[in-house]
Amino acid sequence: MARTSDVATLVTQAREGQARAVARLISLVEDASPQLREVMATLQPFAGRAHVIGITGSPGVGKSTSTSALVAAFRAQGKRVGVLAIDPSSPFSGGALLGDRIRMQEHASDPGVYIRSMASRGHLGGLSWSTPQAVRVLDAAGCDVIILETVGVGQSEIEVVGIADTVLVLLAPGMGDGIQAAKAGILEIGDVFVVNKADRDGASATSRELRHMISLADRPAGSWTPPVLKTVASQGEGIDKVVEDVDKHFAWAQESGELTRRRQRRAADEIEAIALAVLRARMADLGADDNVAELAAEVLAGVTDPYTAADRLIATLD
Amino acid sequence: MARTSDVATLVTQAREGQARAVARLISLVEDASPQLREVMATLQPFAGRAHVIGITGSPGVGKSTSTSALVAAFRAQGKRVGVLAIDPSSPFSGGALLGDRIRMQEHASDPGVYIRSMASRGHLGGLSWSTPQAVRVLDAAGCDVIILETVGVGQSEIEVVGIADTVLVLLAPGMGDGIQAAKAGILEIGDVFVVNKADRDGASATSRELRHMISLADRPAGSWTPPVLKTVASQGEGIDKVVEDVDKHFAWAQESGELTRRRQRRAADEIEAIALAVLRARMADLGADDNVAELAAEVLAGVTDPYTAADRLIATLD
Repeated sequence: MARTSDVATLVTQAREGQARAVARLISLVEDASPQLREVMATLQPFAGRAHVIGITGSPGVGKSTSTSALVAAFRAQGKRVGVLAIDPSSPFSGGALLGDRIRMQEHASDPGVYIRSMASRGHLGGLSWSTPQAVRVLDAAGCDVIILETVGVGQSEIEVVGIADTVLVLLAPGMGDGIQAAKAGILEIGDVFVVNKADRDGASATSRELRHMISLADRPAGSWTPPVLKTVASQGEGIDKVVEDVDKHFAWAQESGELTRRRQRRAADEIEAIALAVLRARMADLGADDNVAELAAEVLAGVTDPYTAADRLIATLD
Repeated sequence: MARTSDVATLVTQAREGQARAVARLISLVEDASPQLREVMATLQPFAGRAHVIGITGSPGVGKSTSTSALVAAFRAQGKRVGVLAIDPSSPFSGGALLGDRIRMQEHASDPGVYIRSMASRGHLGGLSWSTPQAVRVLDAAGCDVIILETVGVGQSEIEVVGIADTVLVLLAPGMGDGIQAAKAGILEIGDVFVVNKADRDGASATSRELRHMISLADRPAGSWTPPVLKTVASQGEGIDKVVEDVDKHFAWAQESGELTRRRQRRAADEIEAIALAVLRARMADLGADDNVAELAAEVLAGVTDPYTAADRLIATLD
């Protein structure tokens, strides 16, 4: 872990594009290091420039391949790109199973691309705490585009991509019809929909169904209508159009004020998450963890109920 | 909403098996009603009997169909069954898209079956707060078996099924290979694996790969080795064997002490979630929400950083 005196140096090095410095800063975020306060205060003036793009979709739709193709397209425009791949961890072991980043290896040696897998912690507030801060690191380090890629389409994935400026939802023919998409809650969060593996049967039907479901939503005048695009990401087909529409959405968001609204909401969520984490840490500092196990045993034995137990836990804070 | 004087009556009616009373108690949980304290204190002595079974798997593997088949099997044993289907809600609208419960309709008129869709809130701690309490309601109301069914396999779904006594993981041939399962973090949480739609191509390959990946895990002596079963849930094929292995796991968990460990962890998570929710409510009560928007605007403008903002938010609590 960096010594306190190193923080200013680390931030300077990260801003010069030194990947190792960026890596150390993100590790401080992952470790919820006490130094984060200083890191974030130092980064603050440099953040706010990057276009943050969230990518989500069920396992198997080709998220890694699509991310890789998008990185190549942004690189061709001379942009610096950061990729955060958010992987799930077991709530039991705390360990993370890192996804296969094989598709991304073509960019591994490009100094204009920074790729990082992050574990999404099982702890309360873990995701809302760490992802915006990792984004802030990459943003301040000079990335023009930051891609957040999640593993699945659950609630926490929606929360992750929900902090993005532009949300890209990937589907594949036969992976799930419109009802499955609706069940997964992705219809409401997508700014751009992409039916990948469009060379397979059913791609047109999936696109049509998506367009229909999108058309059913109530949209106020002047709002953004999410386009539905087709790609074969493994061949790079259709990727330029995705980049074009993602850029269009960003321009619309800037002009309409939606970007400010989203970023303000993102900052508010982050502040609340940090405040709760600080309060939680205070509980732990007071030896509350032993306390919690004891209280849990009492609840299990039927001696007390969870609300009374929670009150007693909070009392240890005062 | 029930008046305070009604709580004792509601609990009595729920314990008599009146579905309407159970529904009202679960609504109190969903609404995070202030009356919950009294409800939970009243229910406490009656809880702890039910076998809680979590079912998870990617959209499209047949979770609803499998749940329905399991309900039929448990009903054939004369057991009372509760089903909680946890559906995702958009973090933006707060609205829930209720899943298609079509498959479950055959049980809709059976007074021995209680079925409820619950929205998984986007709020921090929403899931860990409401699910264990809904389980407690069904448990105290006399359900012998409670099935928790989630929509996807994201982090929050893992948290939901993680509170179960027995976790059943569903897969389908061709829906995703072992690596996808590993990425989704489900290998570590499953107590019983089921390859559904086993009449399709690739079922044996999927089973084999799963067994292989399970065999790679380090397991201490005396621990449970998750079986890998095959079903065609829509035909009821293989369901009896699933019930048998789920019951075997429950017996093992009781004998080995694993059940007590899991339930104690569940109670501890619940207490912490309630404590954090209480603290969060205190922030809101103090008009902190306006405060948060103001602080977020300052962070966005680069005037302050999120940690300093969080400190100022917490200061409003003192």
